[in-house]
Amino acid sequence: VNTFGDKFRISLFGSSHGNLVGVFIEGLPPGIEIDVGQINLELSRRAPGQSKVTTDRKEIDNLIVETGLFNGKSSGEPFVAFVRNKDVDSSYYDEIKSTPRPGHADYPAFIKYKGSNDYRGGGQFSGRMTIGLVIAGSIAKQILSRIGVNIQAYTLEIGGIRADPILEYINSSFIYSTENIVRVANPESINLLVSEIEQAKEKGDSVGGIVQCEVQNLPVGVGEPIFDSIESRISHIVFSIPATKGVEFGSGFSAAKMHGSEHNDEYYFENNKIKTKTNNAGGILGGLSNGMPVVFRVAVKPTSSISKTQDTVNLEQLADSKLNVRGRHDPCIVPRVIPVLENATAIVILDLILMGNFLSDVI
Amino acid sequence: VNTFGDKFRISLFGSSHGNLVGVFIEGLPPGIEIDVGQINLELSRRAPGQSKVTTDRKEIDNLIVETGLFNGKSSGEPFVAFVRNKDVDSSYYDEIKSTPRPGHADYPAFIKYKGSNDYRGGGQFSGRMTIGLVIAGSIAKQILSRIGVNIQAYTLEIGGIRADPILEYINSSFIYSTENIVRVANPESINLLVSEIEQAKEKGDSVGGIVQCEVQNLPVGVGEPIFDSIESRISHIVFSIPATKGVEFGSGFSAAKMHGSEHNDEYYFENNKIKTKTNNAGGILGGLSNGMPVVFRVAVKPTSSISKTQDTVNLEQLADSKLNVRGRHDPCIVPRVIPVLENATAIVILDLILMGNFLSDVI
Amino acid sequence: VNTFGDKFRISLFGSSHGNLVGVFIEGLPPGIEIDVGQINLELSRRAPGQSKVTTDRKEIDNLIVETGLFNGKSSGEPFVAFVRNKDVDSSYYDEIKSTPRPGHADYPAFIKYKGSNDYRGGGQFSGRMTIGLVIAGSIAKQILSRIGVNIQAYTLEIGGIRADPILEYINSSFIYSTENIVRVANPESINLLVSEIEQAKEKGDSVGGIVQCEVQNLPVGVGEPIFDSIESRISHIVFSIPATKGVEFGSGFSAAKMHGSEHNDEYYFENNKIKTKTNNAGGILGGLSNGMPVVFRVAVKPTSSISKTQDTVNLEQLADSKLNVRGRHDPCIVPRVIPVLENATAIVILDLILMGNFLSDVI
Amino acid sequence: VNTFGDKFRISLFGSSHGNLVGVFIEGLPPGIEIDVGQINLELSRRAPGQSKVTTDRKEIDNLIVETGLFNGKSSGEPFVAFVRNKDVDSSYYDEIKSTPRPGHADYPAFIKYKGSNDYRGGGQFSGRMTIGLVIAGSIAKQILSRIGVNIQAYTLEIGGIRADPILEYINSSFIYSTENIVRVANPESINLLVSEIEQAKEKGDSVGGIVQCEVQNLPVGVGEPIFDSIESRISHIVFSIPATKGVEFGSGFSAAKMHGSEHNDEYYFENNKIKTKTNNAGGILGGLSNGMPVVFRVAVKPTSSISKTQDTVNLEQLADSKLNVRGRHDPCIVPRVIPVLENATAIVILDLILMGNFLSDVI
Repeated sequence: VNTFGDKFRISLFGSSHGNLVGVFIEGLPPGIEIDVGQINLELSRRAPGQSKVTTDRKEIDNLIVETGLFNGKSSGEPFVAFVRNKDVDSSYYDEIKSTPRPGHADYPAFIKYKGSNDYRGGGQFSGRMTIGLVIAGSIAKQILSRIGVNIQAYTLEIGGIRADPILEYINSSFIYSTENIVRVANPESINLLVSEIEQAKEKGDSVGGIVQCEVQNLPVGVGEPIFDSIESRISHIVFSIPATKGVEFGSGFSAAKMHGSEHNDEYYFENNKIKTKTNNAGGILGGLSNGMPVVFRVAVKPTSSISKTQDTVNLEQLADSKLNVRGRHDPCIVPRVIPVLENATAIVILDLILMGNFLSDVI
Repeated sequence: VNTFGDKFRISLFGSSHGNLVGVFIEGLPPGIEIDVGQINLELSRRAPGQSKVTTDRKEIDNLIVETGLFNGKSSGEPFVAFVRNKDVDSSYYDEIKSTPRPGHADYPAFIKYKGSNDYRGGGQFSGRMTIGLVIAGSIAKQILSRIGVNIQAYTLEIGGIRADPILEYINSSFIYSTENIVRVANPESINLLVSEIEQAKEKGDSVGGIVQCEVQNLPVGVGEPIFDSIESRISHIVFSIPATKGVEFGSGFSAAKMHGSEHNDEYYFENNKIKTKTNNAGGILGGLSNGMPVVFRVAVKPTSSISKTQDTVNLEQLADSKLNVRGRHDPCIVPRVIPVLENATAIVILDLILMGNFLSDVI
Repeated sequence: VNTFGDKFRISLFGSSHGNLVGVFIEGLPPGIEIDVGQINLELSRRAPGQSKVTTDRKEIDNLIVETGLFNGKSSGEPFVAFVRNKDVDSSYYDEIKSTPRPGHADYPAFIKYKGSNDYRGGGQFSGRMTIGLVIAGSIAKQILSRIGVNIQAYTLEIGGIRADPILEYINSSFIYSTENIVRVANPESINLLVSEIEQAKEKGDSVGGIVQCEVQNLPVGVGEPIFDSIESRISHIVFSIPATKGVEFGSGFSAAKMHGSEHNDEYYFENNKIKTKTNNAGGILGGLSNGMPVVFRVAVKPTSSISKTQDTVNLEQLADSKLNVRGRHDPCIVPRVIPVLENATAIVILDLILMGNFLSDVI
Repeated sequence: VNTFGDKFRISLFGSSHGNLVGVFIEGLPPGIEIDVGQINLELSRRAPGQSKVTTDRKEIDNLIVETGLFNGKSSGEPFVAFVRNKDVDSSYYDEIKSTPRPGHADYPAFIKYKGSNDYRGGGQFSGRMTIGLVIAGSIAKQILSRIGVNIQAYTLEIGGIRADPILEYINSSFIYSTENIVRVANPESINLLVSEIEQAKEKGDSVGGIVQCEVQNLPVGVGEPIFDSIESRISHIVFSIPATKGVEFGSGFSAAKMHGSEHNDEYYFENNKIKTKTNNAGGILGGLSNGMPVVFRVAVKPTSSISKTQDTVNLEQLADSKLNVRGRHDPCIVPRVIPVLENATAIVILDLILMGNFLSDVI
């Protein structure tokens, strides 16, 4: 349940207010140079408190690698790394223990674990668990970059306001530049989306959005038939990221309105390479990469933690109740989802690359 | 890659033009009565040739159960069952072997398997592989019905034309009634959607749609944290069904436009049961069922096999080429996706039910 | 539970008196020529009724390959093959249903499955299930032979009578020659062991023995740390073969009486290859192959089915009872264990070879 | 490869001279009280430096539990715990990096990992990795004790000298009493076995032995058919413990010399319970527990690290070489294998208990 993958297999552990959150990785090929600085860079992109559109909580997530590296290279052992949680005041969660927060896992988790789970801050249902995804994914990214595979996500929409991506801005240096706090691929849209978030924030409310992710330069034939289709694997991990509500590949839901003659991507040769004229397939046919960019979109709900008073129930008194969720929350989680989604995607792609023996020449 | 699940583990085998297609099931609890007639009923709903909006090919898929049943009950052995493929003329596929069909897996499969795969009719990338899903799912459904869990899918949209579901028609007897060939939950919409499909068919074209699926009466707490969230598991299997392009739960992509105060489903007591006022969560919080109906939608692309001439490439001559896909095809696959989706969902739900020990009283 | 392996993953299905017994294989690399005649040859070595020292039941096990081959090569699909059971009279098993046979799984299986399992002939606890091991193993052997890996088992001891192996007779053509019905690697011992078995047979009794197995030409470094040591994997599958009571590698139990200075295998160079002077390690250090032959021995109990009257209990009457096991039984199963053990070992070795990417140059 | 188990799934991590050694556990049922003191007690039994017959190295292995416990109970999260390695001088291992120690994994690991593995102290092939087995096993033991299942191992033989077990001494308080440094179940034998070890120690040599392990009060029907037989699972983990060379159940290798009429354990009723007159089956039939004690024996080789000069090769100079293994070593590892074997067995038994739903009433 906390484990994912076949050849590159990751297990997330820890919880929001416990000692730590981290990842156990099995199947990292031995003898590969790992840049720990790169992992920290990815973690800093995910960290809270980076800008006025994220939570004010400022946490520095210091990576501790306990095992799996030897002389800067993967050693063939499992890789275990984590980030320690700061001393946090958890007393608030004792107060609200029996009044589940709407939109959070509190209620079903209480029932499932009969009260024995660590409920503080959502326990292992917290968004903080994605730290392990980022650690594992940033290692996967480093390996994928050796065969030229690049993964880039960016914000497409926040609160219904579109930021149409512009090709020259779809790159990591623009998306993660300090002025681009909403992480769009369109400089004109930054202010529009920022002000949309700020309006929600002022009202103690939150707002959702859509993220797009592209995988470039994947060899043809990555993915496995039926249950290990690229889409099956990516959607699986996408829905392990809190706040995701939908995923679509290529044409996605718009395919429902199209005709086959319009939707089928016709083949042609360009410079001796096989391409398709359109990319409604999102780079995937029969679950396998077809050489075109893999493109998918993810719907992100508005953050569940809001300042407004909400109706809930009291699980001990078995009665209706009210709840004020305290603390400083992300008015929009979309910008912080971007690095998580990239790294989660890298985990899937590396695993499929290893399953298909596409790395055997490199490692 | 052909195997899915943890406690109720299924493996699909066979191929479109090989001897058979079937399923291997491990983890079916022993001593459970299995009604083979029910499996055949579900297979007949999936079968081609049922109406004027599906393909004219008339195939009767006779179920053969080879092992796993003893005196009408599950025996504790693996369950192995299949349907034999009819003698089909595969010569056509030799003709088009090197001109991959747009929208099909032909091209990436050719590259992946270096030509050694069974390419006839798409091989194991064929929609015919879903027969195994239907067999396994209809067993899962029978077990789930013992604890009152019900799964119902229906058509929501075809070619952009909406068929808003009406509560009293969301049931198996209406959805699968012989006059309801588009399988909507709204009698008024039948003709509109049928004529949309017929128009596409007349032009030798095809059309896509959207399917909705509901799971009723799930106990609270079904699903496992992180990688075995209900959404992760359902989306995983949904994208193993050919022609699916997107999946969304509850509010889905519309969540992207909403505020948290609007999206959060507030709790209240109704007849001593905890409910939520809205169901934007689609019955799932933190990956766990919260007692409300699980609701999700799936985008289905227009069938890739169309009669119109299409551009493609010739993989041997390494040159651009033309292709006419022969044969009788489904102008709209949506109605046949309905039973497949229900049964695929049943596989996931039973597996999660077993993982969470929710059946221990019953079996 | 019926599934074993990681990259080359096999699942056994069927039962002794059901329709069939067979194997489902996932992970067979695509594009490999498979000689079905070779599989049948291995099956014939396992089949009953081959000589006076095995059961008189004459069964011809005809292999049916349903899927996974295309034009004589592996297609990338799962491989599914089986042998149909002959029409057998199962009425006898109804008689003894409630009087469990000593030495068989009848009693614990009855309790475990609460009577819903197929008890006829032991159901899936029958030795007949090893047909699936032989089918999968003979495919594994064919692949291993391409990199020069050879696996040979032979009888070392029957009823306490030793047949010391002689190097020149440790080969398949002698071990499986028609005159060598006890399958020893020593022509002098044949008659001694045969008469030992015949004496037991005359008394309606059975006798046990020891089998030795050698794996030659394994590359250095095959096997994975800790839980996928060669010994862990081989012993796992060995104890899935009915009638096995012990397994030891290299020095085995005699190591218990040795000193370290005597037991350690010292290294030296011979023709630029690293060898060890002794092979107490049985070719394995830290779970990994060290370049010397892998050698292990398996203890086989005397067949549980004997003609003598035995004490048992009646599970319905809850009282002591007597039992006469009818039918024609193997007075010694050791000769039939030889091909099963070789093929089971091949399954393990191929899986570890694939896990360690030792085949990437070949396939 | 570092992961074992199905429902109670453990992964070992770390290495001999790295930061730490520990265990990741998934599937620990939630809400169970865990006594950390009990884990420390088991660790202290495994620790080096306990007596004159083990190594002089005195290490105190302090357990750190990072996650998985909440208010003294299992929380439903993965359980992660480890022991930090003391600052050790690893310079010696740089000296001998290219001269592999006979009897250790050094040589095949060097080839397998092409030099990128942590070779110091054997890396992850070190006996120190069994710390993770002890941590996980001592948790398993605590759960098993709730349904009355008890696991006890003891020394049966050292250097060929037998210590026949006496029923009244087969218990944890005698086996682990401070005077019983060889951990036999026979007070008369203590001195004999101690002096056998001391003689080996004086010569800078080491000596092997045999350990017996018993599992009492297992319900009937524990174990799963074919590949999850009790024997398959126990032998799998036994051979993951360094220094093991053989394993046998019940009659074991002596079965090879027996007749069926003698070997079959006949059933009878005793106080309304079904028992067998003998226990050649070692409590297991068809891989399932039959209600009698599970009994097995493990052969332990003499420790590979000895003070005597040994022949080896130099992997860089590609020439024969000599080696003196420095440091303080166990002259006999058998007494320290006892707690490791008990805990490893507990891991297997708990996993099979959970697979068979035998705990559902308790937890």
